[in-house]
Amino acid sequence: MEFKFSEKVSHLQASAIREILKYSADPEVISFAAGSPAPEALPAKELEELSKEILEEEPSIAFQYGVTEGYTPLREEVKKILAARGVFDPEYDDVIITSGAQQANELSAKVLCNENDVMLVESPSFIGSLNAFKSYHVALKGVRLESDGVNIEELEQKLAEGGVKLVYLIPNFQNPTGNTMSWEKRVKAFELCKKYDAVILEDNPYGDLRFAGEDIKSIKTLDTEGRVIYSGTFSKILSPGIRVGYVCAHKDIIQKIVVCKQVADVHTTMWSQMLCCRFLKKYDLDEHLKKLRKVYEKKTTLMLSQIEKNFSSKITFTRPQGGLFIYCTLPEGVTTQQMVDFCTKAVKEYKIAIVPGTAFEISETDETRSFRLNFSTPTDENIIKGTEILGRLSKEMFGD
Amino acid sequence: MEFKFSEKVSHLQASAIREILKYSADPEVISFAAGSPAPEALPAKELEELSKEILEEEPSIAFQYGVTEGYTPLREEVKKILAARGVFDPEYDDVIITSGAQQANELSAKVLCNENDVMLVESPSFIGSLNAFKSYHVALKGVRLESDGVNIEELEQKLAEGGVKLVYLIPNFQNPTGNTMSWEKRVKAFELCKKYDAVILEDNPYGDLRFAGEDIKSIKTLDTEGRVIYSGTFSKILSPGIRVGYVCAHKDIIQKIVVCKQVADVHTTMWSQMLCCRFLKKYDLDEHLKKLRKVYEKKTTLMLSQIEKNFSSKITFTRPQGGLFIYCTLPEGVTTQQMVDFCTKAVKEYKIAIVPGTAFEISETDETRSFRLNFSTPTDENIIKGTEILGRLSKEMFGD
Repeated sequence: MEFKFSEKVSHLQASAIREILKYSADPEVISFAAGSPAPEALPAKELEELSKEILEEEPSIAFQYGVTEGYTPLREEVKKILAARGVFDPEYDDVIITSGAQQANELSAKVLCNENDVMLVESPSFIGSLNAFKSYHVALKGVRLESDGVNIEELEQKLAEGGVKLVYLIPNFQNPTGNTMSWEKRVKAFELCKKYDAVILEDNPYGDLRFAGEDIKSIKTLDTEGRVIYSGTFSKILSPGIRVGYVCAHKDIIQKIVVCKQVADVHTTMWSQMLCCRFLKKYDLDEHLKKLRKVYEKKTTLMLSQIEKNFSSKITFTRPQGGLFIYCTLPEGVTTQQMVDFCTKAVKEYKIAIVPGTAFEISETDETRSFRLNFSTPTDENIIKGTEILGRLSKEMFGD
Repeated sequence: MEFKFSEKVSHLQASAIREILKYSADPEVISFAAGSPAPEALPAKELEELSKEILEEEPSIAFQYGVTEGYTPLREEVKKILAARGVFDPEYDDVIITSGAQQANELSAKVLCNENDVMLVESPSFIGSLNAFKSYHVALKGVRLESDGVNIEELEQKLAEGGVKLVYLIPNFQNPTGNTMSWEKRVKAFELCKKYDAVILEDNPYGDLRFAGEDIKSIKTLDTEGRVIYSGTFSKILSPGIRVGYVCAHKDIIQKIVVCKQVADVHTTMWSQMLCCRFLKKYDLDEHLKKLRKVYEKKTTLMLSQIEKNFSSKITFTRPQGGLFIYCTLPEGVTTQQMVDFCTKAVKEYKIAIVPGTAFEISETDETRSFRLNFSTPTDENIIKGTEILGRLSKEMFGD
């Protein structure tokens, strides 16, 4: 039987990362392709203990239906944390718990964008969000990302073209680049969105994972009227498998997201929400984050030093101060196809999985000679071994 | 700040049930408004035990990212169960695990329907699905539901009008009516959808909860080419709070649902999936269902006898052979507004929560003089007390 799929979905492809990850299933493959937290950074023992408490003390809450807005005690904890960071304004903001930040970003687009509405995104940007926006047939336009955030002139130019509903930004340790937006650019971007009446969707999954430099305040701290939707997650600091994220936004927006979440999955798994809540109540979050940051600092430093030591000197790369990713760029003159060939050869012949930059472009036919490396998932041993092999291949293909 | 919400969402209202459920938060209110499984029917102890095993034996699977298609061992278990019932055809079908059947139905509409595509639904039907379809701006048309399923003449007439993409049916113990579609009507509906090239979305959340009469085979058992999408859930037989459902459909449809689920929530909570899987492997599902059915049979019988004893004799009601709901209809001549007044008075003045039939109509302005009663959530004592009070109110308002 031939099916007529909806237009918004028929053009959507399974992500290129999925193809790469298929190879990663081979236990011999060293994967630099994932976006998972370091296994040793997950508080598995603590969560196991908390889970026991939940199921002994409150099984009926864990196993029965909950409300769509989320488990009230968790919402209160999240509000407290965000208020302390200047992100939650009790005057007009509200918080909803979502099934990961993926759902937070998807529902934000759904409530605000009609088909063919314009949305500006960093170029490159996170493939999961790009595909979520595309699945509502939103017209995506890229704004070139620089080491300190989007190019402001280009942002203004594209806002001035009109019809922009949403501007999607990942200001901290961006996926895929690892770049962080400067405070100056955050202020300018916010002012521009105000001038052209666009809403900002500020996605901050990695902000807690800063291991170097000084924290930069969220764009949401500039907000006085509800122009910024802020999304966060417990995936990188507690566990991704439990699927808990949240949105902090103007009450009116949250109300619409609640309606959409109700029809999407009724509510987020109760046990997952209760785990996060108990963790926040029992443990000192700052102490926990300090431990995580040490793990990530060690791994980044190791991978950066190995890249310097092993890669072709013509390859440039970012030096993130947090997050999970390093973005490498092949020498000028290298074509997109040669970059894809490099990634394909790396996984097929050398069993090192990396993600080609095409995955993070608005269209997979856009040109790029970059690729993404993840340092959080592999062991130290595999970081050393994998970068050595990638280094040899890079020199072979692009010279010393 | 004034927000311009997307057209598909701006017309969506928080469900009327939510308003009623707000009153239900009052511990003094007896709620016949929920759709939750009976607390005593949830295998909480077994699930608690299985949870301990999971977190001791496989914490890294439970806490890390999983694949969008679902936890492979659970998909295999579901395929086995569905194959035994003639629902899964390994030739062309596949299965994806979803975050409850709500997501199963929502994503089915998303992958197949453009905005303004026509979808036929039973009238009345499940509000969660109706709102999910509306959130994609699908044009819903109702087909009158009779005690043995939709009116077949009307179904053909509306199919013949053309442009119907999907036909949404809940054949077993339908929500809100409790009605079950006869085998003859299942066959006819299937043949008609074949004739007019529409896809059927068969939603079967309650099928396992039959406590009287003979099982009737799923419409999906008639399928030979992938015309039927079948959705199911663990919400009513294990736990709703864990949010695990599934879709069984043609591989091509599943592939598109996978892409949409990836952008919706990446994957369903791993722990929840592992719980279902271990339950199915360790316990005899049929034995478990036998226990559940006894609980539900007892509760339905009790509520039906109390309705007969206490309600105004002019009120008619369905006699479901399974599921969670009884649908009552006020005497002829009663207006929609009078029915809503009855429901409002019941909860506000008499502290008995019931759901007005308007909640299950395509438009909340459609006329109906019915209301829904749930017998699974209240205790036996409250069933007796609540129906007595409702009975008094019904006689007061509509005569003996």
